[in-house]
Amino acid sequence: LRTISFDPETASVELVDQTLLPAEFRVLKIKTIDDLCEAIASLRVRGAPALGAAGGFGVALATLLSGETDIGKFKPDIARDAEKVASTRPTAVNLRWGVERVLTAMDTAGNVEEARQLALHEAQEIADDDVRRCRAIGENGASLLRDGDTVLTHCNAGRMACVDWGTALGVVRSAVESGKRIKVISCETRPLNQGSRITCWEMGDDGIPVTLISDSMSGMVMRRGMVDCVVVGADRITGDAVFNKIGTYSHAVLAKHHDIPFYVAAPLSTFDFELLEKDIIIEERDADELRKCGEKLLAPADVRVYNPAFDATPMELVTAVITEAGVHRVPLDMDELARLA
Amino acid sequence: LRTISFDPETASVELVDQTLLPAEFRVLKIKTIDDLCEAIASLRVRGAPALGAAGGFGVALATLLSGETDIGKFKPDIARDAEKVASTRPTAVNLRWGVERVLTAMDTAGNVEEARQLALHEAQEIADDDVRRCRAIGENGASLLRDGDTVLTHCNAGRMACVDWGTALGVVRSAVESGKRIKVISCETRPLNQGSRITCWEMGDDGIPVTLISDSMSGMVMRRGMVDCVVVGADRITGDAVFNKIGTYSHAVLAKHHDIPFYVAAPLSTFDFELLEKDIIIEERDADELRKCGEKLLAPADVRVYNPAFDATPMELVTAVITEAGVHRVPLDMDELARLA
Repeated sequence: LRTISFDPETASVELVDQTLLPAEFRVLKIKTIDDLCEAIASLRVRGAPALGAAGGFGVALATLLSGETDIGKFKPDIARDAEKVASTRPTAVNLRWGVERVLTAMDTAGNVEEARQLALHEAQEIADDDVRRCRAIGENGASLLRDGDTVLTHCNAGRMACVDWGTALGVVRSAVESGKRIKVISCETRPLNQGSRITCWEMGDDGIPVTLISDSMSGMVMRRGMVDCVVVGADRITGDAVFNKIGTYSHAVLAKHHDIPFYVAAPLSTFDFELLEKDIIIEERDADELRKCGEKLLAPADVRVYNPAFDATPMELVTAVITEAGVHRVPLDMDELARLA
Repeated sequence: LRTISFDPETASVELVDQTLLPAEFRVLKIKTIDDLCEAIASLRVRGAPALGAAGGFGVALATLLSGETDIGKFKPDIARDAEKVASTRPTAVNLRWGVERVLTAMDTAGNVEEARQLALHEAQEIADDDVRRCRAIGENGASLLRDGDTVLTHCNAGRMACVDWGTALGVVRSAVESGKRIKVISCETRPLNQGSRITCWEMGDDGIPVTLISDSMSGMVMRRGMVDCVVVGADRITGDAVFNKIGTYSHAVLAKHHDIPFYVAAPLSTFDFELLEKDIIIEERDADELRKCGEKLLAPADVRVYNPAFDATPMELVTAVITEAGVHRVPLDMDELARLA
């Protein structure tokens, strides 16, 4: 199972509609650029690595849909569709990165058929590369888990955020694959419940024992000795902090208080070698995410809400960062990591 | 406004239906024992002190409803209704306490009219006493807050959990009443959202500035310097720990990490001078509280869930306990507190 893939036979992008999880598992077969843009905008596909692949496959799809036979007219045609896909979620850096990587690969094409071949190949390569990197993260991280361990995780850094395998959940999967019995405690991850909706679904689907808790219970389960380590993903890693889904910082402080290792699993592409925590503005999301659940009112309709999407965990609370290149103990050697990236 | 009161003119228990908040503010006029039992069972009225008053008013209501004129037949009649009320929520200690306190007060009555007078007076006294104690807690705690402070709180330890004023929110109200400008950060309090539904509504109703956050954000707002102190209520206080709504412990660890005072506001009746943390079994609630929101599925329908109702915060994380008798710094003098109680 891949979260997103491309079928050249039917000229369709196939993706798991994550908005339907956990109630329904449905694979969409997307055959137009408009439908792909709708799927991206509606978060039917989400997660930085998965969006990189979506961008790449979007350009590949465009090359199959275009009826142009003149390469001089074909390329601007594809560029228009590519821009449409890339601009669907302007802040999703990986989406545009995937689009541009495939456009660049087509640059040398002398004719339409060659352009199609190059686009398909490059898009497929983005997806395959992501799977390889997640597999390597998983194997590197698995060495940190012992048979019988319980891993607490937050949000969804799993298959559904990537093309396959996942980062934090990739570590769990690789450990299980190597024969270790691992249990997962999944924090529901308010306000959008990616933990309860997606991580619990993924683990159940793989037959890995998972227990759902509210985010506020992480302290209690740690104090009761129910957690051997914390493994989370990351949206961005600077030299001084890990940016990840809101709530990660609280878990990190609690892990430190209970002497529990706190691991971050993420590909090297997550590292930001330019900026520091202070330079990064954390996006605030819609107040209604906390005021409502569907149409049900959970709070006064006009109550003031603070709803940051992410928080920053200072590096001194992190035990190690797990990448495709290895397990990097903190303090990190950012120069070395920059060379590896 | 009182959360619960009794109108002898119309022989009705009047209570705010908390299940409708925040969408609707409705005062129920309850005229039968069956309706009162339904309101208690459905959590239309909740919170230990409010349930004590509900039990007392229930017996008072029974005395007005009974058509018996013979005191020998009247008393068993009332006792049957009283037992019906008390057994509606068997684990709510205060409910039975309120019922029995009023039954005992009627004991000396020589005739039905006298019994009614004694019951009404005693039930009213339970309610009035609760308000006086909350007011005293509020005034004692207010001395700890400075003009301009922001108080982080969890769950609802407010008017709606008591007859009026509240414990943790009583501290905020008394500080505001004394002229201090106080802001509140209310954690939504998963899974039942008493923070977002009730605390935010109460503060909005009083015109006290309140900001709603998810429980997982408390670490981030503390780290950003947005919190001057934490004030929470308590369900039970032993010599070594404070039992309160699940999530309280995580906030306490985070407050300690950020050098933020952590206060517990509760009446002396909350103290348990017999047991210690290890002796107390924490009730686990229904898994569907985390799996669903109304009919909406937030997690796989069969996922394993850990859903403790409360957690225990070891006393060394608590700065002080605020009661109607004063501000008691930790370490507590339990012998002295037992004398005061």
